[in-house]
Amino acid sequence: MGKLLIVGTVAFDAIETPFGKTDKILGGAATYIGLSAANFGVNSSIVSVVGGDFPEEYLSMLSSKSIDISGIEIVKEGKTFFWSGKYHNDLNTRDTLITDLNVLADFKPIVPDNYKDSEFLMLGNLHPSVQLSVINQMETKPKLIVLDTMDFWMDHTLDELLDVIEKIDVITINDEEARQLSGEYSLVRAAQKIHKMGPKYVVIKKGEHGALLFNNGDIFFAPALPLEEVFDPTGAGDTFAGGFIGYLANTNDISFENLKRAVIYGSNLASFSVEKFGTERMENLTKKEVQNRLQQFKELTQFEIELT
Amino acid sequence: MGKLLIVGTVAFDAIETPFGKTDKILGGAATYIGLSAANFGVNSSIVSVVGGDFPEEYLSMLSSKSIDISGIEIVKEGKTFFWSGKYHNDLNTRDTLITDLNVLADFKPIVPDNYKDSEFLMLGNLHPSVQLSVINQMETKPKLIVLDTMDFWMDHTLDELLDVIEKIDVITINDEEARQLSGEYSLVRAAQKIHKMGPKYVVIKKGEHGALLFNNGDIFFAPALPLEEVFDPTGAGDTFAGGFIGYLANTNDISFENLKRAVIYGSNLASFSVEKFGTERMENLTKKEVQNRLQQFKELTQFEIELT
Repeated sequence: MGKLLIVGTVAFDAIETPFGKTDKILGGAATYIGLSAANFGVNSSIVSVVGGDFPEEYLSMLSSKSIDISGIEIVKEGKTFFWSGKYHNDLNTRDTLITDLNVLADFKPIVPDNYKDSEFLMLGNLHPSVQLSVINQMETKPKLIVLDTMDFWMDHTLDELLDVIEKIDVITINDEEARQLSGEYSLVRAAQKIHKMGPKYVVIKKGEHGALLFNNGDIFFAPALPLEEVFDPTGAGDTFAGGFIGYLANTNDISFENLKRAVIYGSNLASFSVEKFGTERMENLTKKEVQNRLQQFKELTQFEIELT
Repeated sequence: MGKLLIVGTVAFDAIETPFGKTDKILGGAATYIGLSAANFGVNSSIVSVVGGDFPEEYLSMLSSKSIDISGIEIVKEGKTFFWSGKYHNDLNTRDTLITDLNVLADFKPIVPDNYKDSEFLMLGNLHPSVQLSVINQMETKPKLIVLDTMDFWMDHTLDELLDVIEKIDVITINDEEARQLSGEYSLVRAAQKIHKMGPKYVVIKKGEHGALLFNNGDIFFAPALPLEEVFDPTGAGDTFAGGFIGYLANTNDISFENLKRAVIYGSNLASFSVEKFGTERMENLTKKEVQNRLQQFKELTQFEIELT
């Protein structure tokens, strides 16, 4: 089993969906990634920053999932990063209502010494310079670096983002962002162009339409599980990424065959995350539930046809 | 092997995509269905109507694919149904520019006597009263009736459409139409409601995002093949339906396991149809190409994970 280092936001979210709204609840990319990866029993650590207003109980909950929180800096006099958003009726689009960077504005990540030799590094969506700083602090080159990013960094810090993209092994990105980054509408062509920017593997997330894994000429597709009800999509992409890298860290195998399994597990875990507000579902998920859902994924996609 | 009867339009299309435009070329739901089903060597017949302006060479081409054309009525003094449309840049949406019903306006389908005992009946998108008339002309109850329809009939002839839906076994419908017909946004719930209207199987087509096959509690998903370039989506849904029912007629097996294979073949054939304008690609498709693409579908979706 490989050690997993996660850098990303630990935050407050306030979410409104057609089904209800929340006050400030636990959110943040690293939170979702960590909770998702925790299902594979990996030795993981989160590097992040929160303010003095961040509840101790949230940190305890993360610790209880065997996530090392020594890399979460607490700025006593500062306030925690806060995001608020409202989803449209179809849940596929949302408006951001509030983004208060707070302590995130001056975040200088510090990797704990005992995680500088992590074999697996997950760079959650953050300023590319923060992501780069974490890469540079590693004492041994990770076996696999996975990067998540978004259109905001393409719009505002493209050169720095491209520097990071050159150094990583897997990029996870949604379909519209893949089109923006590559200038290609076809996702097959977009992936080809992004490969040339550095990453050996390109994962394109299509939300309710699943995710595509590209490895040059090879393509694998993980569907999203069709659900009766999607309650809150917040964190689904991060949960996907956490399941993906958590499975890889657990198995310590970065072959294409194993990456296929990893995207299936990513999709599996994301299908739970959207069932309740925020992190609620992920905090109470059992191994049995994940295994049962894996069976559903098999039934959804596996077929037997003889080639003639 | 079962006999296959197809009712639907045989038409002229004029198509404009971002890649070019055509004059009047061969089109129509029954044309695409028939050409697609022909890949399975089934004994099929098309019931349709064309005008005196319809080229003999088109009929010969259909005959050369072993499609019985004795049920295609030729109204010498009439003109063939004509549709013209222009696709938007993303190819997912289009504007209809012209719909000239012509001889289709008074179409009274007549099922050839030797196809009144067909085991498989494909009702292509048409006025529900025409679809119903074909069902009523069958002398023996078909083993499987597949219905394709569209929002236009939901808007204008819903009661008649519901009468037909009650009598069929499989409905193929796109995602937005499933939502309209059921009043449910979730496709899982939409399929549940549509089951209650009659069909044992519900196939929801999601275009580039694949297709879902529902059989009460069971769900199977056939992805669309990610393509470098989609040239012309016209007829993709009909080609899907033709591959679906053509495979079923060839194997004469309507178990859920076999319907899974049928949606994979439907998606397989649709992936060729979009590669060129109109029916061009389907007219020249080889068995070897279909089998090679089936291998691509396997690589795209099949995985090995041990349940623990």
